[in-house]
Amino acid sequence: MVVGTTRYAYLGPEATFTEAAALRLPAVAGERLDPHPTVHAAIAAVRTGEATGAVVPLENSVEGSVNATLDELIRGEALAISAEVLLPVTFVLMARPGTDLGSVRRIVTHPVAEAQCRTWVSTKLPDAVVELGSSTAAAAVAVAESAPGADGHPYDAAIAAPLAGERYGLDTLAHDIGEDAEALTRFVLVSPPRTPTAPTGSDKTSLVAYIRDDHPGALLEILEQFATRGVNLTRIESRPTGNGMGRYCFAIDFEGHVADARVGEAMMGLRRVCADVRFLGSYPRADGVRPPIRQGTSNADFRDAAAWLEQLRG
Amino acid sequence: MVVGTTRYAYLGPEATFTEAAALRLPAVAGERLDPHPTVHAAIAAVRTGEATGAVVPLENSVEGSVNATLDELIRGEALAISAEVLLPVTFVLMARPGTDLGSVRRIVTHPVAEAQCRTWVSTKLPDAVVELGSSTAAAAVAVAESAPGADGHPYDAAIAAPLAGERYGLDTLAHDIGEDAEALTRFVLVSPPRTPTAPTGSDKTSLVAYIRDDHPGALLEILEQFATRGVNLTRIESRPTGNGMGRYCFAIDFEGHVADARVGEAMMGLRRVCADVRFLGSYPRADGVRPPIRQGTSNADFRDAAAWLEQLRG
Amino acid sequence: MVVGTTRYAYLGPEATFTEAAALRLPAVAGERLDPHPTVHAAIAAVRTGEATGAVVPLENSVEGSVNATLDELIRGEALAISAEVLLPVTFVLMARPGTDLGSVRRIVTHPVAEAQCRTWVSTKLPDAVVELGSSTAAAAVAVAESAPGADGHPYDAAIAAPLAGERYGLDTLAHDIGEDAEALTRFVLVSPPRTPTAPTGSDKTSLVAYIRDDHPGALLEILEQFATRGVNLTRIESRPTGNGMGRYCFAIDFEGHVADARVGEAMMGLRRVCADVRFLGSYPRADGVRPPIRQGTSNADFRDAAAWLEQLRG
Amino acid sequence: MVVGTTRYAYLGPEATFTEAAALRLPAVAGERLDPHPTVHAAIAAVRTGEATGAVVPLENSVEGSVNATLDELIRGEALAISAEVLLPVTFVLMARPGTDLGSVRRIVTHPVAEAQCRTWVSTKLPDAVVELGSSTAAAAVAVAESAPGADGHPYDAAIAAPLAGERYGLDTLAHDIGEDAEALTRFVLVSPPRTPTAPTGSDKTSLVAYIRDDHPGALLEILEQFATRGVNLTRIESRPTGNGMGRYCFAIDFEGHVADARVGEAMMGLRRVCADVRFLGSYPRADGVRPPIRQGTSNADFRDAAAWLEQLRG
Repeated sequence: MVVGTTRYAYLGPEATFTEAAALRLPAVAGERLDPHPTVHAAIAAVRTGEATGAVVPLENSVEGSVNATLDELIRGEALAISAEVLLPVTFVLMARPGTDLGSVRRIVTHPVAEAQCRTWVSTKLPDAVVELGSSTAAAAVAVAESAPGADGHPYDAAIAAPLAGERYGLDTLAHDIGEDAEALTRFVLVSPPRTPTAPTGSDKTSLVAYIRDDHPGALLEILEQFATRGVNLTRIESRPTGNGMGRYCFAIDFEGHVADARVGEAMMGLRRVCADVRFLGSYPRADGVRPPIRQGTSNADFRDAAAWLEQLRG
Repeated sequence: MVVGTTRYAYLGPEATFTEAAALRLPAVAGERLDPHPTVHAAIAAVRTGEATGAVVPLENSVEGSVNATLDELIRGEALAISAEVLLPVTFVLMARPGTDLGSVRRIVTHPVAEAQCRTWVSTKLPDAVVELGSSTAAAAVAVAESAPGADGHPYDAAIAAPLAGERYGLDTLAHDIGEDAEALTRFVLVSPPRTPTAPTGSDKTSLVAYIRDDHPGALLEILEQFATRGVNLTRIESRPTGNGMGRYCFAIDFEGHVADARVGEAMMGLRRVCADVRFLGSYPRADGVRPPIRQGTSNADFRDAAAWLEQLRG
Repeated sequence: MVVGTTRYAYLGPEATFTEAAALRLPAVAGERLDPHPTVHAAIAAVRTGEATGAVVPLENSVEGSVNATLDELIRGEALAISAEVLLPVTFVLMARPGTDLGSVRRIVTHPVAEAQCRTWVSTKLPDAVVELGSSTAAAAVAVAESAPGADGHPYDAAIAAPLAGERYGLDTLAHDIGEDAEALTRFVLVSPPRTPTAPTGSDKTSLVAYIRDDHPGALLEILEQFATRGVNLTRIESRPTGNGMGRYCFAIDFEGHVADARVGEAMMGLRRVCADVRFLGSYPRADGVRPPIRQGTSNADFRDAAAWLEQLRG
Repeated sequence: MVVGTTRYAYLGPEATFTEAAALRLPAVAGERLDPHPTVHAAIAAVRTGEATGAVVPLENSVEGSVNATLDELIRGEALAISAEVLLPVTFVLMARPGTDLGSVRRIVTHPVAEAQCRTWVSTKLPDAVVELGSSTAAAAVAVAESAPGADGHPYDAAIAAPLAGERYGLDTLAHDIGEDAEALTRFVLVSPPRTPTAPTGSDKTSLVAYIRDDHPGALLEILEQFATRGVNLTRIESRPTGNGMGRYCFAIDFEGHVADARVGEAMMGLRRVCADVRFLGSYPRADGVRPPIRQGTSNADFRDAAAWLEQLRG
């Protein structure tokens, strides 16, 4: 594979779900990809300029927000989200070519995958033993290299992401063996602050709102800034800012693009009622949904109202 | 008195509270003042161009809104409010010079004044009879001209506005005999649509919001447009628009000037969520109050937020 | 007509729209009906016990609230609304039997009716003269009795309510000649305070909410009490309470019955946030509409929630 | 120490902050305490009945919510919070008796403690090396037992909770060496579902609200249920329920006790608008604050309103 000269960081190791997500991002796909051991390390590579961007998980439908990523976005030097990918969490049972499902006795995988696939394993391979490794990719490597487990016997199969099977020459014995068939992980491409790309009509915007003080109605006030302009939230997370119990900020995703009039006015409203607002970016939605725009909140409605006001002011 | 060449209409007859209010308006005071028999007639003089403006009552702390005035502002050709005056409703017992309070047996006044002064009269002049006339000014004239009542006997005293006593040469026998010492009437100067005068820091703005349809949450939605921008209402009146029971509009007064950023944004919000908005004007408050501006809603706060957004949009 | 022994008052004179409304009320129809010259007089008859109830206009789709009625409900001794009627404002041109439309030269009516029928008269009877009288019923009487107008000539026709034609033996020359074909007046039966009749599923409740002080957010707070419980307002009117400019109350009508759980909780909320709340009554809707109940706000939903809470409290 | 027969689980190992928190809880202090390797294991001991309760961290002012605890409360069999403790995160440098601060060359601690104390160490002990262990308590044990590090040399000092010093016979060389002097961790005592203890006037209530579907205004609707009844939130966390990206619930803490009328009504409101509500408990606030009760929301206000409604309903 010919690799571009631009470098992107991602949360490693290789052949896990994050690399699979990175490969789906058009901006990233043909470029050089460097695995990093932690979210912090991947994002530090962006902050130092070593990498153009970093692909990291932000949110998981089972585990919730990835706090390590959220905290990098909330604290320290400002960053931007320039793209998102939604990846189904598809666990595959994989083995060296020629292995028969019926002969699998020893499986290796990561603890999260083990928890997700426990029902399948106990039903289909009741006699198999599952051992735990540091990542699903490492499990695939161990099987490919016939590495022995703790007792010295080799592993028969690994539970890992489909990409690991392709990468390490393993065959799939069973597809999609996780419990939650709808499980998704949302990955984002994190870059230095930048002007957003043009609106597509199916966009999402992310920001962090730091509340002025811990007054009880702060969150209600923030939500009203959105509701009054017809801007729908898709996600809200509270996080401590790190300055004493009770000093919170809210990481918020919502429909629309910073270039949209309703989004701009809601963001200016936040800016006025919050201690600070950190804009993270506007980017195309991974699901391609184009939500309906509430009556009175289109760009044309805002333009008409502004022209009307201008004329009244004389 | 030298009178200017500009003509102003007012709700007559002469020497009632409305003329007293007109004389307090700097723009009107030295000009020619024409009494009209009804609010409709006074405002029609403005619409036809016969008068530069009309002074009419809008609101009374005892009787509430003056619907005749409200409906002229709500329906028909657009108009503007360019000034307001608050006048205490001070009822005076007045008589021909030389009349002694103890000798008053027959009083004449308007029914509203009679209702307001009933307690005083029954306490101080228990034997007096009160007859009703078409206006307080007409009552004063009747006394000045010694006009007889229904039974042919002359009136001893009138209850009227202080101005009527001055105008018709009557002496005051008792001041402020109304029941409600705090009663006030609010008068407005109605003009053709015009660009408002500059903000003074103590301003009020008036408009009419016509709701899009009779959906139950319309009023809440309107109020939220104001609340989100920190704009305080001082008065709200619902009125039918005349098209079937249940088609309402709201006549709203609020703190601030159309030139204020928070007011402008709230008005644009109304324009977007309402079927129509009729701007009536921004003008100095008669009470001179300069209300505090809520944190985050000053013109500087709006400018800062707009500059921030501009920079984010790149 | 055999008349019951119970007496009801109504705003007279006879044969106007108010009497027509009274005759539509099942509780009132067969009873003795006494016309009174003013709303105040009709309601005073209830307060003194002289009448069992009074039928008075409350709201008109063209003229708005009838303040005289509203103020009787807001101030003074408490009263109840026990029924409502909606009556189309149908103006009829009526004349002595044998009169031909083409021969009508002199018409008499009340000023409000004249304004509503001006277009019809100027189109269909361009040469006719319209004179004004004290009521539409008086106009019908004048025609029936061939009473002369100011210049001594008799009237050819009256514009009045259909009932007046029946009552005074006049024939209809033209139906429904008013401008606003949808114009409606809402009349209410006012009684002493009483326990409401049972819910019908199509009910309305009326109350007056007196705000605690003139704080800017008071109305928003009141509306939120309703919105949180899914109770839809059908009408809201602000009125001064009579204690200084700016001391307001709100007369509010809303869907549902005081026996409904959502209505009860909203009313308790008002009671807690307002200076005072005056309950006027729950009664069947004149329009028979059974509005949908928002998810989570039925009586069963409230019962379920109360049982759940009870069990948590242990 | 004589130990009771009741067993409590806590997140181990021994002598970390969680054990210190457990010892501050009156209900737990004299009882048998069993350390568990994970939050899941500690809470499982409660679910199986092996332990009466479990002390686990819920929230940290630096790291935010402890998701492992939150998810145990959100998913699976219902549980209750019956007490909370706030513990300052006080890191201490501790060594074997007789060790001099100047002679410290090798320090061992947990990674979180290392991050918090990095500034202090680099300033005061620039030549010291810090090695990482599995817990702060294990670090203290290693020092007490003079256990060697990776290169075989023994450790001079540990950074750990004050309790570890007492427990393992170490002396304090420096107090409170963490960066964030205000850092606090909130621990809770988790029990099987139970009737809450009586209100103290300084109480907190916790619940989980599962939103009906991912409709954009769901959170606003939830917050309004609290705001309308004057109930102040102290914390809100969104968490996936585990059924597909976008199915959220909110873990909410608020002022007051389930026995308080305003709290009860807000909770019933939630119950009606949410898909489900899981009550976690009402318990005394660790900070002892008795917040003011907003006008109109005291128990007496609710009682008065209920009596009024009862009387209206007749």
